[in-house]
This record gives sequence, structure tokens and C-alpha cells, in this order.
Amino acid sequence: MTLNRRALLGRAGLLAGAGAAVAVSGGALAACAPDAPPPPATVPFRGRYQAGIETPSQDRLAFAAFDLEPGMTRADLVALLTTWSAAAEAMTRGQPVPGRSDDQNSPPADTGEAMDLAPGNLTVTLGFGPSLFDARFGLADRRPAAFTTLPALPNEILDPARSGGDIGVQACSEDPQVAFHVIRNLARLGRGTVVTRWTQLGFGRTSSTSTSQVTARNLMGFKDGTRNIKVEDAAAMGRSVWVDPADVPGPASWMAGGSYLVTRRIRMILETWDRDPLFDQEDVFGRSKVDGAPLSGGTEFTPPDFAKTLASGQPAIPLDAHIRLAAPENNGGAGLLRRGYNYTDNVDPATGLLDAGLFFIAYMRAPEQFVRIQSSLGNRDALNEYIRHTSSALFACPPGVAEGDPADYWGRRLVEA
Amino acid sequence: MTLNRRALLGRAGLLAGAGAAVAVSGGALAACAPDAPPPPATVPFRGRYQAGIETPSQDRLAFAAFDLEPGMTRADLVALLTTWSAAAEAMTRGQPVPGRSDDQNSPPADTGEAMDLAPGNLTVTLGFGPSLFDARFGLADRRPAAFTTLPALPNEILDPARSGGDIGVQACSEDPQVAFHVIRNLARLGRGTVVTRWTQLGFGRTSSTSTSQVTARNLMGFKDGTRNIKVEDAAAMGRSVWVDPADVPGPASWMAGGSYLVTRRIRMILETWDRDPLFDQEDVFGRSKVDGAPLSGGTEFTPPDFAKTLASGQPAIPLDAHIRLAAPENNGGAGLLRRGYNYTDNVDPATGLLDAGLFFIAYMRAPEQFVRIQSSLGNRDALNEYIRHTSSALFACPPGVAEGDPADYWGRRLVEA
Repeated sequence: MTLNRRALLGRAGLLAGAGAAVAVSGGALAACAPDAPPPPATVPFRGRYQAGIETPSQDRLAFAAFDLEPGMTRADLVALLTTWSAAAEAMTRGQPVPGRSDDQNSPPADTGEAMDLAPGNLTVTLGFGPSLFDARFGLADRRPAAFTTLPALPNEILDPARSGGDIGVQACSEDPQVAFHVIRNLARLGRGTVVTRWTQLGFGRTSSTSTSQVTARNLMGFKDGTRNIKVEDAAAMGRSVWVDPADVPGPASWMAGGSYLVTRRIRMILETWDRDPLFDQEDVFGRSKVDGAPLSGGTEFTPPDFAKTLASGQPAIPLDAHIRLAAPENNGGAGLLRRGYNYTDNVDPATGLLDAGLFFIAYMRAPEQFVRIQSSLGNRDALNEYIRHTSSALFACPPGVAEGDPADYWGRRLVEA
Repeated sequence: MTLNRRALLGRAGLLAGAGAAVAVSGGALAACAPDAPPPPATVPFRGRYQAGIETPSQDRLAFAAFDLEPGMTRADLVALLTTWSAAAEAMTRGQPVPGRSDDQNSPPADTGEAMDLAPGNLTVTLGFGPSLFDARFGLADRRPAAFTTLPALPNEILDPARSGGDIGVQACSEDPQVAFHVIRNLARLGRGTVVTRWTQLGFGRTSSTSTSQVTARNLMGFKDGTRNIKVEDAAAMGRSVWVDPADVPGPASWMAGGSYLVTRRIRMILETWDRDPLFDQEDVFGRSKVDGAPLSGGTEFTPPDFAKTLASGQPAIPLDAHIRLAAPENNGGAGLLRRGYNYTDNVDPATGLLDAGLFFIAYMRAPEQFVRIQSSLGNRDALNEYIRHTSSALFACPPGVAEGDPADYWGRRLVEA
């Protein structure tokens, strides 16, 4: 019911103090909580690049894809992106969504579930799907030439309801409730303009992205991301992750300093994998399970020696091993910044087996990098026996929102006339 | 493929060291990881009561319900519970599932994804569903009189595929990957004996259960669990949570020292809630949103004064407020130890709205306590406009596995002849 009993009954003054307190930032409230981790860790929202790409991977993910509602215009898109940018910037600071939260007669501007929580290095990263460049918004001529829907790839059985989307948003934090709070509030703020197409929670990071991180394990129990691009490697980031101005001439120049984002929900057939002997699990990856060393010898970070052979003449790292087929040196130098998470979502109703695996996320300078590697893997990778790609999405993430320009917002150069 | 190439090709010696290292406990490995939280926090598996009930709520949940496969016998049940108890005890210590993990020709005894992770106060709590006491296992006469399937309750639209189960397992940890590792390994160890019926992840605890914890918020943004039983209150735990020997005479005596577990997946209609004005949100709960104080005044932990009236003569806490209808003093003194978690699972395919809410968990001395409170809430609670119970399960959790008796296991007194 929505009749203000309290105002009608003269009870409005009872909580006068409480309403005012809403304006206090989440960070300040968190500092009062005895079990909150001090100090609140924050990542700047603005900058040359969007946060959440070169940010060392946080532990938890909430991802959402949105579709514009029928009948929306370019002006609606501008309004959405303006509102979302302001909200995301506030939330990354540990502050509530901007607006009045003390008006008893209005819904609070922020939904409140992150009110006492530290932001935990929250980042919010946004990208545009290829579908946004169709006839609806007059953006077709601004589509970068390299940015087309991914081709059909081997070993995929995609669920369209969990794939694609006009806009994708990656929210990462050390605290899953903080990450979910972002998705939920962006969905709320976008109501009437966008509908949520799909969401995905990730509970454990794989693919460490920083030299400061230990390599985490995927749900097959293997270290994942040993040879990932590390964000400290500016040369590799420039070569393989950031879109160069020369890549996007003319009307596509809004994408300079951006990055393409590919997501793939990769279901693991864990029940089959778990019955596989240790030697075969290690042959499949090309690495030792416990310490992550390549089967050519050394320790985790020893570069794999793909030419090394055993006394028998057979390669030390099998020809169909995952690390061989995925290696940049075997894919024309194409590297990806992988930033994935482990997931699980109940059981598969058809089989009663756990629906779990890896929600693959990668950032790259051109989608072709992913296509090339996945084509290489898809046909020959020994891992294919144990995985299935069940969703796919591609987004063009624009550069960061400019520091020192309060009027800037996500994708302004794309959507403004 | 499962042919041991490495042994055949004379490569078996390459990883001799790695295989041996599998025997090292996860805890010991975690101590080597530079960003692991020292010291590893563990909760004893054995004791008078099962861990995970009076343990202060950890931040993350993985829950699973299992059904026995057709044709299973009492002996299969004994074997399952014996194996599961040993595995759970090891995992709560931060050790891998017992068994050989260094045999190259066998699947590793542990799946490995928690190998480098601290247990994070991991607890594993097991209960038996009413269905286990049907004709299959000859346990009908051991069913406690109080333990029957929950009656139909107001405001529920239950999904049978996500409800019930012969056995329920609650795994809680500060680390979701550690909690999932338990569910996945129990499912694996039980293959052929049980099939997984449903699982549920919870990403943020609500209903703080300890005086040492700040009260967490549910996805409506309100503090949840202010008046919850606190595990430090031994009198309340004895009165409302632990099954007394006098409750379970004769063949039901195996349940003395146990507790009944109710789970309810409570979907929140967030889109409607988010449009509700602040005053009404507060009237629905009977508390201030920001600080959690009851509308009768004071601060969060001030007892609600249900008799207090405003100058107008109206009650300060509305007659249909959630905290009024749920209060033990208004339900014959029946209290519950709530131990729930926030959840989200993609979008509702029928509506495109977020499927999110509260995975309610409560422990109690008799299921009737829940039935009484839920009946009271179900018919009159102002919150009902914004929630829907979509799954339900009830389990009888036996007492703890005995310290100093290596042969003891979960439910031994129930299932042994």
C-alpha cells in the first residue's frame, strides 16, 4: 500500500534523524561497523580507460546484459547512460545512488542493501553489443569495422536467452552483495528504457590479471591464468587489449582507448572430468595439477617448451593440450586479457548434474583475437571432451569517463549527435 | 581419453614431486600463498551439536538437497554417510577429501579447486528429509512424532523441483569456492547412491546469529535478524533450537541434541518494492530503514513496544508490520534461529525481472514453531505484497558426530540396525 499513514497520523517526525542519515556515504557507515575491513578500498571510476579492465581481478562478479525496450530513441539512450554513469560513479565510491533517500513519500534513491558494506574495489564496466548498431538508433555508421557478431564457433550449443544483449555491464567487487547491488540498481534506474536480458554471478575469480595475485583455480582444480596478460605489462596491454586510434578511424573513433569484451558461459562436464585419471587431466591441460608447472618441466611460471620431446620422441606437452593450442605464440601472437569467474547455477534439470563451470570473460583489442584462439581450441583441444560453451556475448567497451569533465558519461562520443 | 600416455612413454617420473605434494593439506598450501588470510580459521567438525548451527553465520552458503537413487538399501545409506562424514571432516580442516591423490592412473580423491584456499570457518551440516522415513529403508518407526512434511502454508507457490529431498546439506564458509567445493565433492562421492535434487548459492548472510556480528541487510535494504536468537544465549538455544531427549523418546531418540532445519526460497518482487515510498517500506517492516530501530522508538536493539500508540491512537508499529507478526511474544514464545542468505539466480524468464530474494534457513526444536510463525505471517503480513515463497524443505539434523569416536558418523544412531 502507498498511503502515507505516518504523515496522516502525525508520526512523520519520529524518524527525522534516520532520513538524514541516508545521505551519509556507505563508506562512512562501513567505518563504524566493527567487522568491516578498514580502510575501504576504492578504484577510481574515471580515467583514460574504464575501470574493471586493468584493475586486478576482484574475487566476485555480477554481470548483466540489457536490451533497449521497443520504441526507445537516441535521447533515451543518452539519458540512460548519463544516469547510469552517475550512479556507478557514486557506488564505486561507496556512496548510495544519487538522489533523495530521505523523502518519506518517495521510494529511496538507493535500494539500501549495500549501505553498511565497503565497496571492496568495486568497478563497473560497460559495453555496447553489436545489436545496438542496427537501425534503431542511427549508430550503424559508427560501428567499428572489426566489431561484428561472433561467427559460429566449434563446440558451442548456445542458449539465446543467455547470450547477447544491447548493453553489457560487468560489476566486480570483493563483496558479492556490493556487485549485485550495482546490477539491481542499474536495472531499477533503467526501468522503462531497458529490460534485463540475463545475469550471471561469479563466485571465484580465475585468470589472475596481476603480478600481485596468486593464480586461482578453476572448477577442474587447475590453476587458470598463469600465462594471462598481466595488467602491469603496459606493452602487452597496448598490443592486445586497448583499441588504438588507428584501429578506429572516422566515425568509429569513439572506441579509441576502449576494449572489446567477450563473455562465454563454459559449462564443465564435471562428472566426467572427475572420473578422469590424474595423468590424463594433466595431459589435457599440459600442466601439473598441484603446482601448475608445464609438463615440459620447471615451475608454474616457467615458459612451456612446446618443442621439448621425451626420450620416446613424443612431445612433453601433448599436441592437443589446452595450453599448447591456446598459447599466443601458436596463434599469431594473439593474447587476451582473461578475467573470468567460476560459476554454479543449480542442477541441469535434464540430467540432475551440477550446472557449473567457468564464466569466461576476456578483453581484447579486436574480436578477431578471440575468434582465432577459439577456432584453434574448438577443433582440437583435448579439453573439449569436458566442456561446452552455452552462452556467448560480445560488447564494445568505450574508453573511460573523462576526469575533470562532470558532463562526460559512458559512451558519450558514440551516442551524442 | 584415459590411456596413460605418460606411463607408456616413460614420462612418469616428470611429476613425481607434484603427486606427493597432493598429500599436503589445503591449509598448509594456503599458508604459502602471499594473499591468503592468516591464520586459517577452522570450526571443529565434531561435538555435541553439529557445526553450522551455533556457529556464527559465515558470509557465503552452498546448499544441496539429494535423493537416494532407486534400489538403494540401508547398507548403502550407511556407506554414504560414513564416506561423507570423513570427507566433510577433512574439508572443514582445510584438508583434501581423504584418499590417494598421487596415483597417476586414478582420478584424484579431491577435485582440487579449494587446494590453495583457507577453509574460512567452513561448516557442513546434514539433515534427513521426511521422505527418508518412508518404506525404503525401514526407518518409519524412528521418525520423531513432530517430524512430518510441512503443511500447505499461505503465500507459497512452490516449485517441487527445488523443494524437499531425502538429505539436505548446508555448507557455509567465508569463501564461496570452499563452500561449493563441499557440495560438488559430496555429490561426486555419492554418485550411484544419490542424485542431486537442487542446489542454492547464497552470497550474503542475513540474520546475524551472534552478538559478535553487525546485523546484515536483506535485498530490500533492511537490517535482518536484529531480534534473532543469538548463539551465545544458551537458554534460548535450549528452549527453541536443540531437540531435548524428552522430545524424542524410544526409537526416535537418535534425534536428541539435533535440530530441525527449514529452508524457504523467498523470492522478492524487487521491482514493486523499489517503487514503494520509504514510509511504507518502514511500515511494512515496522522498523526504520537506515538504522533498524523499531518504529516505537529507540535504536536498533531497543525492544519493539507493540503497545505504543501515537497521539492519534494508532499503533506506532502497524498491526500488519512484519516484526509484530513474527515476534516470539506474539507466537506463543516460539523463536527460530534464522541463518539465511541473500540469493540471485538470473532473471525470471516469464517476466524478465530479477529472480532474487532471501534463501531463508532456520533451525528449531520442532517444525511446529515455523508452521505457527509462517501461518501468522502468511495471512496478514504487510510484506506478503512483495514476496513469494517458491521452494520449501524440511530436514531433521541429527546431533554432532562424537568426539573421540573415530567410528562415529552423521546419523549413525538413526541408520544402524
